[in-house]
Amino acid sequence: MNIPTPYLIFLGDVNDPGYAKTAFGLTQWCPDRCKGQLRFPNCPLDLKLPDMTIEQAAALGVRTLVIGAAPAGGTLQKSWLNTLIKAAKSGMSIASGLHTKLTGIPELTAVAKLHKVELFDVRVPPASLPIATGRKRKGMRLLTIGTDCAVGKKYTALKIYASLKNHGVPATFRPTGQTGIMIAGNGIPIDSVISDFTSGAAEILSPDNSINHWDIIEGQGSLFHPAYSGVSLGLLHGSQPDALVLCHNPARDHLLGWPDYAIPDIKSCIIQTETISSLTNPKVKCIGICVNTSELSPEKRSKIIQQISQYTGLPCTDPIAIGVEPIIQSLFHNYNITISKEPLIEDL
Amino acid sequence: MNIPTPYLIFLGDVNDPGYAKTAFGLTQWCPDRCKGQLRFPNCPLDLKLPDMTIEQAAALGVRTLVIGAAPAGGTLQKSWLNTLIKAAKSGMSIASGLHTKLTGIPELTAVAKLHKVELFDVRVPPASLPIATGRKRKGMRLLTIGTDCAVGKKYTALKIYASLKNHGVPATFRPTGQTGIMIAGNGIPIDSVISDFTSGAAEILSPDNSINHWDIIEGQGSLFHPAYSGVSLGLLHGSQPDALVLCHNPARDHLLGWPDYAIPDIKSCIIQTETISSLTNPKVKCIGICVNTSELSPEKRSKIIQQISQYTGLPCTDPIAIGVEPIIQSLFHNYNITISKEPLIEDL
Repeated sequence: MNIPTPYLIFLGDVNDPGYAKTAFGLTQWCPDRCKGQLRFPNCPLDLKLPDMTIEQAAALGVRTLVIGAAPAGGTLQKSWLNTLIKAAKSGMSIASGLHTKLTGIPELTAVAKLHKVELFDVRVPPASLPIATGRKRKGMRLLTIGTDCAVGKKYTALKIYASLKNHGVPATFRPTGQTGIMIAGNGIPIDSVISDFTSGAAEILSPDNSINHWDIIEGQGSLFHPAYSGVSLGLLHGSQPDALVLCHNPARDHLLGWPDYAIPDIKSCIIQTETISSLTNPKVKCIGICVNTSELSPEKRSKIIQQISQYTGLPCTDPIAIGVEPIIQSLFHNYNITISKEPLIEDL
Repeated sequence: MNIPTPYLIFLGDVNDPGYAKTAFGLTQWCPDRCKGQLRFPNCPLDLKLPDMTIEQAAALGVRTLVIGAAPAGGTLQKSWLNTLIKAAKSGMSIASGLHTKLTGIPELTAVAKLHKVELFDVRVPPASLPIATGRKRKGMRLLTIGTDCAVGKKYTALKIYASLKNHGVPATFRPTGQTGIMIAGNGIPIDSVISDFTSGAAEILSPDNSINHWDIIEGQGSLFHPAYSGVSLGLLHGSQPDALVLCHNPARDHLLGWPDYAIPDIKSCIIQTETISSLTNPKVKCIGICVNTSELSPEKRSKIIQQISQYTGLPCTDPIAIGVEPIIQSLFHNYNITISKEPLIEDL
């Protein structure tokens, strides 16, 4: 997938940051590609990018309008269509991670064809996926897992990947969701794969590699989620992870949007995941925990990190407030990784 | 789904019973609907039904040609197409559980339209499936699970369902695969559902019911299978089973077609499945084991059944050679089920 840069990030009229994960993810991880934002007058969100009309963006050389918004249900809103058509007419390609397919909208495909621009539906998995073989692949793999959805699995994977690169360790980020795929320019939207092929998709996502190379795989859902556990297990078994990093939000007492379901106990979560994932990699182990403490005071943050570390016997950190260095050190220690160079401050 | 009866079962040129599961399943469970078989000259299989040409079947009032064959990959063979077109021209509907869609073959859809016959693609899930809610539903549920694929999960579910009906216990068979769906005339092909919706599909498959009603749900795959575990877990969590029945083939030492993967230990299989499925139903328990001993001598059969029963502390039976009565008695005992009438020998 080769989405032409730079981007104009389209927010439309969404009013909650939770419905603009792609917009915020791209702005944070790929600032160089994001030239501006397009907000409808009633949109209260702000990516801290220059506001632009389609005309202004086109004049500034923007080559793709990226839909950064995803309302509940992941559907394209009718009120957005005129803007998208205008963008295509102005020579911009359009990229979307919505369930609604851009290529399924006849008006848009007609305009895109006429103006020779591309429509990128990022949430469409490859047409032909294999059934998983279960064959052990070469190279090392780390998968982020969670006690719930939306607890920082993508963020943690990206931070670990960036840190490994800075330390000179050969690594690749392997995205499994639409935002990660837009950031990396490749990957497989694992939750959109037909269930028979979930593990097969995970296998081809992280193919054989050199023995000291690390694939850092973005996790999805949670094994302990009543709606998404099947996605998580298919991804887990197909990924064959050597290392797991558990992501957790200590401010939550129940699953986001599923008030009848408690957040699982961290230790039991680790033990059960290690047990079940040993099917495809008997050497699997959890090497650390990343918590999102953005809703807590600095005092509470330190306390909870210490508590979780003591309770589990594993390093624990907040990847945003503190950074992932404790996880990286745990990885180096567990797998005898020799650092080929001193860390550099580099971008992705 | 209302597939017109009676059926002509199409075997074509498949040469292994493993590629004719739908044909054998329908012949066994719905003998009244199966009027004849259509085999190509090189087909060595025999359903013990009268051989018929399309003309003969049409003259005898056959209303649907059912594709009973599914070669590896589940694709429709080019060499079959002329026969299917002939059937449609003779006024027969066509039913298929293949991955290849009948409705995706323009030649066939044109003929079907012209001759006013229907094309049934049984492996297509409903167009709009929900995300699972995890809400506890009323009524009781039994799910068959397996130590591998193709160990008798459908057969066991159908036998338990038939026995409960004979005992006067209100029950419904809930199929999740193409053969079961053709037998029952409804159901959801769970392995063809997009992974995000697997548990949601399982939830609508067995909706709220009266408190003493049992849904007998056909299991798919195995939690301990490197390719299909995601399907199995999505089905497990969405089904919210009260009772599990484990199906097992003691003659196998490795997963069928996955020689590097050992058959899991039965006891560990039960404990792990109970633990993980307690998420959506904390009262879940395994109430018995069904083994397929068709490859063993009668002496070895008795010995293995006794061994498994002693090892697990649960009733064990061979549903074909012995019957499912030990499982039914375990169910009655575990759930204090009162039998409203003495068993009758009835067909499905």
